[in-house]
Amino acid sequence: MKLLRVGAAGAERPALLDDEGILRDLSGIVPEIDGGLLADDAALGRIRAAAGSGELPVLDADGLRIGPPLARIGKIVCIGLNYHDHARETGAEPPAEPVIFFKAPDTVVGPNDTVLVPRGSTKTDWEVELAVVIGRTARYLESAEEALAHVAGYVVSNDVSEREFQMERGGTWDKGKNCETFNPLGPWLVTADEVPDPQNLPLRLWVNGELKQNGTTAEQIFPVAEVVRYVSRFMTLYPGDVINTGTPAGVAMGRPEPKPYLRAGDVVELEVGGLGRQRQRVDNA
Amino acid sequence: MKLLRVGAAGAERPALLDDEGILRDLSGIVPEIDGGLLADDAALGRIRAAAGSGELPVLDADGLRIGPPLARIGKIVCIGLNYHDHARETGAEPPAEPVIFFKAPDTVVGPNDTVLVPRGSTKTDWEVELAVVIGRTARYLESAEEALAHVAGYVVSNDVSEREFQMERGGTWDKGKNCETFNPLGPWLVTADEVPDPQNLPLRLWVNGELKQNGTTAEQIFPVAEVVRYVSRFMTLYPGDVINTGTPAGVAMGRPEPKPYLRAGDVVELEVGGLGRQRQRVDNA
Repeated sequence: MKLLRVGAAGAERPALLDDEGILRDLSGIVPEIDGGLLADDAALGRIRAAAGSGELPVLDADGLRIGPPLARIGKIVCIGLNYHDHARETGAEPPAEPVIFFKAPDTVVGPNDTVLVPRGSTKTDWEVELAVVIGRTARYLESAEEALAHVAGYVVSNDVSEREFQMERGGTWDKGKNCETFNPLGPWLVTADEVPDPQNLPLRLWVNGELKQNGTTAEQIFPVAEVVRYVSRFMTLYPGDVINTGTPAGVAMGRPEPKPYLRAGDVVELEVGGLGRQRQRVDNA
Repeated sequence: MKLLRVGAAGAERPALLDDEGILRDLSGIVPEIDGGLLADDAALGRIRAAAGSGELPVLDADGLRIGPPLARIGKIVCIGLNYHDHARETGAEPPAEPVIFFKAPDTVVGPNDTVLVPRGSTKTDWEVELAVVIGRTARYLESAEEALAHVAGYVVSNDVSEREFQMERGGTWDKGKNCETFNPLGPWLVTADEVPDPQNLPLRLWVNGELKQNGTTAEQIFPVAEVVRYVSRFMTLYPGDVINTGTPAGVAMGRPEPKPYLRAGDVVELEVGGLGRQRQRVDNA
């Protein structure tokens, strides 16, 4: 299933994009209690039963915003340097175990919302990523199979990054990963049953129509199952938590000088195979 | 005002500890909409008016849990190496600008809840800290005065840390800062008007009755106002966000071998002048 949230900006409601491409209203099925459209087993079960009945009302999307597919995100765990080709372009050694950093949930915007270059920034960069949404509480998982059983689904994510803030201002990477609007997420949460092999997904990103990133999750150093298992050994993962699993080669930072960092007026488009497409206009904060 | 949340575990309600030390029920004043007891101006204004009326019902706290003072925390920004004496004990140079890392809100527990040593941990450490609670949305603040006007109040925080996960497992510090139960917070949010000088507060922490940390916020490299101003240049701060402003000297990591890291059965007590006291028993995850 493709699950999303659409509506007037700030008042999005849960919806299903069905197999015929018709948008269906889920707000009678998943009430807005606690944010609605949580990714937990109970909500997914109710949605699956309702979708099977074929009687969900059609939703007219004209003029509506697509919001992030989760109304409430607990935390966003990010994996750094998780693609062989991206580690090479940054000059870093492939890490011996997953590198973890964080984005705050308040950085999340819809897939087609504006991305803001922070004041004082000259190095705002893009990162197309496969994001994993957790569906069941995960603590000290042991195996890859167990890990995948805790995944609700997958989403396209742009892990926008300010490289000077991230790497030249002291401290951890978090400083360059948490500016407002720095995590476009969506358009859809695609449930895990429709992504049989998360290690065989193409990822692409364009800036002003020019292809910049053209990778595949086959290049991941730590595959999704290992990432979920590993993270659960250090922190508890809850339904609605998101893991950004890293970006392939092709970011601005990895290019020769003058590096083509984002500026107001640029348009970023990105997609992950089967998970849909995002389009952001860039503006100044 | 001293604001807290008390009740049956998981069903705490907002309350006020009044000037006579009597606990008063605020649940009629700050309804549980959106988590209740948010730190924003509107909620604080309503509470202040009700407290002034002298007619708030008394709350019997017998057998009740004190929860974290905020029902919903947006993000927790942490400042590393922010005390001259703590930077010295770790062998680090004092940072040129604030070091930022994150804790996830799901690490927060009440001030007297159990702290869990993670599985596989041998280096679980304590950190008494002054936490700042944001009361107004803060973006690109310019001055110290402006920064302090965005602070709702102050809370005692234990920034529990696993040093091997933090520093010997690759990546950023976040890996050792986000284990479950790793951020006891409370007992009270003391509103900013009752903390005229946040740079003159004693901080103390004991393990099994032995004094381990005995510092003062006068030792902070970057004072509260500068921390809030600085962080707001990199990310937007929202009401209910928390900033852990760093720990003074005296952590286990800074001691000679064998370093006295926490084990099941230990009891940690901590306090910040005027902000109350915490007491945690340590157990295994």
